[in-house]
Amino acid sequence: MQSPVIVLAPDSFKGSLDAPAVCAALAAGLRRVWPDAVLRHCPMADGGEGTLDAVLATAGSAGTRRVRRVRGAGGAPIDAAYGILEGADAATAVVEIAQVVPITDPAAMTRPVGERDTRGVGELVAALLDAGVRRFMIGLGGSSTNDGGAGMLAALGLRLTDACGQPVAPTPMGLAALDSVDAAGLDPRLAACSITVMSDVNNPLCGARGATAIFGPQKGVAGDELERFDAAIARFAALAEAALGVSAATRPGAGAAGGLGFALQAIGGVFRSGAEVVADLVGLDRALAGADWVLTGEGRTDVQTLLAKTPFVVAQRARAAGVPATLVCGAVDPAALAALGEHFAGAFALAPGPITLADCIAAAPALLADRAAELARVFAAARRRAPR
Amino acid sequence: MQSPVIVLAPDSFKGSLDAPAVCAALAAGLRRVWPDAVLRHCPMADGGEGTLDAVLATAGSAGTRRVRRVRGAGGAPIDAAYGILEGADAATAVVEIAQVVPITDPAAMTRPVGERDTRGVGELVAALLDAGVRRFMIGLGGSSTNDGGAGMLAALGLRLTDACGQPVAPTPMGLAALDSVDAAGLDPRLAACSITVMSDVNNPLCGARGATAIFGPQKGVAGDELERFDAAIARFAALAEAALGVSAATRPGAGAAGGLGFALQAIGGVFRSGAEVVADLVGLDRALAGADWVLTGEGRTDVQTLLAKTPFVVAQRARAAGVPATLVCGAVDPAALAALGEHFAGAFALAPGPITLADCIAAAPALLADRAAELARVFAAARRRAPR
Repeated sequence: MQSPVIVLAPDSFKGSLDAPAVCAALAAGLRRVWPDAVLRHCPMADGGEGTLDAVLATAGSAGTRRVRRVRGAGGAPIDAAYGILEGADAATAVVEIAQVVPITDPAAMTRPVGERDTRGVGELVAALLDAGVRRFMIGLGGSSTNDGGAGMLAALGLRLTDACGQPVAPTPMGLAALDSVDAAGLDPRLAACSITVMSDVNNPLCGARGATAIFGPQKGVAGDELERFDAAIARFAALAEAALGVSAATRPGAGAAGGLGFALQAIGGVFRSGAEVVADLVGLDRALAGADWVLTGEGRTDVQTLLAKTPFVVAQRARAAGVPATLVCGAVDPAALAALGEHFAGAFALAPGPITLADCIAAAPALLADRAAELARVFAAARRRAPR
Repeated sequence: MQSPVIVLAPDSFKGSLDAPAVCAALAAGLRRVWPDAVLRHCPMADGGEGTLDAVLATAGSAGTRRVRRVRGAGGAPIDAAYGILEGADAATAVVEIAQVVPITDPAAMTRPVGERDTRGVGELVAALLDAGVRRFMIGLGGSSTNDGGAGMLAALGLRLTDACGQPVAPTPMGLAALDSVDAAGLDPRLAACSITVMSDVNNPLCGARGATAIFGPQKGVAGDELERFDAAIARFAALAEAALGVSAATRPGAGAAGGLGFALQAIGGVFRSGAEVVADLVGLDRALAGADWVLTGEGRTDVQTLLAKTPFVVAQRARAAGVPATLVCGAVDPAALAALGEHFAGAFALAPGPITLADCIAAAPALLADRAAELARVFAAARRRAPR
């Protein structure tokens, strides 16, 4: 058989492998069957954790990974990685919120969520502005904060004061005393910026489907704090919108990353599906052109995957290019298979038989390679059998 | 895509589904993707448990399932199923040892293995001789006995006596007192019979690779009985061979079914791979002619599968017919994949993710259908992408 051209466009397997590692494992398996296949690595992400890795993995010499020490969510300093992509005319900064206020940061997680904030994000943006950057790709997801983005805006010059005119902390607790918001000191360079906000979360800022109600509990918001925090953030958002002359709290994605989705849109950010932006950044369409097959995947697939998660975006792009897309995941909810079948040329899990989650995660690279090799055997056999 | 022709030729999934049920589940999944596919059901078996089901499932009106009450391995009566296949010139009886002296028979298992025997098999053969049958297909496997086939031969007229000329029990214990074997009373009709002995076991009757050493322990032979039983059976075999004027104890398969493989070959039976015989009985080659794809499988696959187990035989027949064979199993040993890849166009397990063995078995039909459907999606996509 003529050597096939195969695109590898998986998301990371959360808790197990980053997307470049998933690509490498798939490639190892495919090479067993097709030693001379043309494999195009397009590690994907949804704007959340792993976005920076995926973008830098495909940027080559045009991308640089850098680190800046900023204020972590709990106040202790954190070394936050970000990326700089050199373009034809200007540089683009790729910022991953999960690098600045990660929910995996032990120092921050010792502080209650009511005292955590996103000032570090504002500090990083300000430093990049100082460096001359005016284009931002900011990936939301994996944050430990629920401050409505008040911290970031405060660090960029928004003044938050109580009834006595004293500054309040830009935290869920501090915002309870908020009386007025003054945008006069906001960094004027922001007006000249292009900010793309990447997320796979469409929720609004407040209310029953808002950041606090939906994502607060997993960050540590207690049951009796939910209403209080939501009200404080709603009040902050209303005052900020008035001060900035915008309306952003009800936009899709305002509730992403504890409300950073609101704050970034309030200063001109344009919200887009993270997977769509990453697909563009990694050149997915270019890779799909003329390809025979694309493999995508994620840690666990269920019907939610069809709500614009990474594998779905890959499948849509692949369909447009006329390339079949097969899904390889740590686990696939059998109840989702019929719906997945509308979009994927097969959906497969890694398990070689009964196995525990821990064993499956530990053996993920080997199991991924095995699965890719076995699928390649089916694919190759079917191609040879095609009616002429 | 033109509707494909697909052969379904799985073994049973032991402890879960019989082979016709595996075919049905695979078919249900394939129909989701190809409602008008031509599906050829060839349920397979290896001569052991499930052979009768598989043969009768494809025999149609030419096959009849019957039952005869005979002596069970422990002495209590058992209703043993067997099959009659009407041929152009004569009938063939399909006997499955696992129906007569099954290791799953609670009545027999209360007796120690040293007191169990295969007289019931001889009773069934004698009754079939009375009915005029002269062609036998006898499937070994799944037996609870370790009597060297002495019980069967005794029931067919072989006289086993001690030093005082008194009859001894044809059991491992009884044979310890065996002094002489007289074949004068052996049923003379056996000489006119064609007996095919089916098994996937190649072991000789005695010694380090013999029936007692290898299969005795799982039937309950204790450590201190192993040498004693092996010696008693070796002595029985030597005397029987002398009385019958044959040599059979060292032939491949003599150690199958606790030594029934020896006894059947000693009376003229011809030993063949069970899967090969079943492949012929179910018309596998005819089904493969012109087919696009064959799915085979078994409960658990490892490198042993390549020692002439059912899926391997299916793969060999499929290769001869130029049809790709894909393996779908409850579990696949990852260490076997490279070797399996020489014979199978992909090997896949059922698990949709981390899962327990019990859950996998309980959900086997649904998981099988899912796996077949997803593989069909890959196959269909690859066919459409074939270079012209």
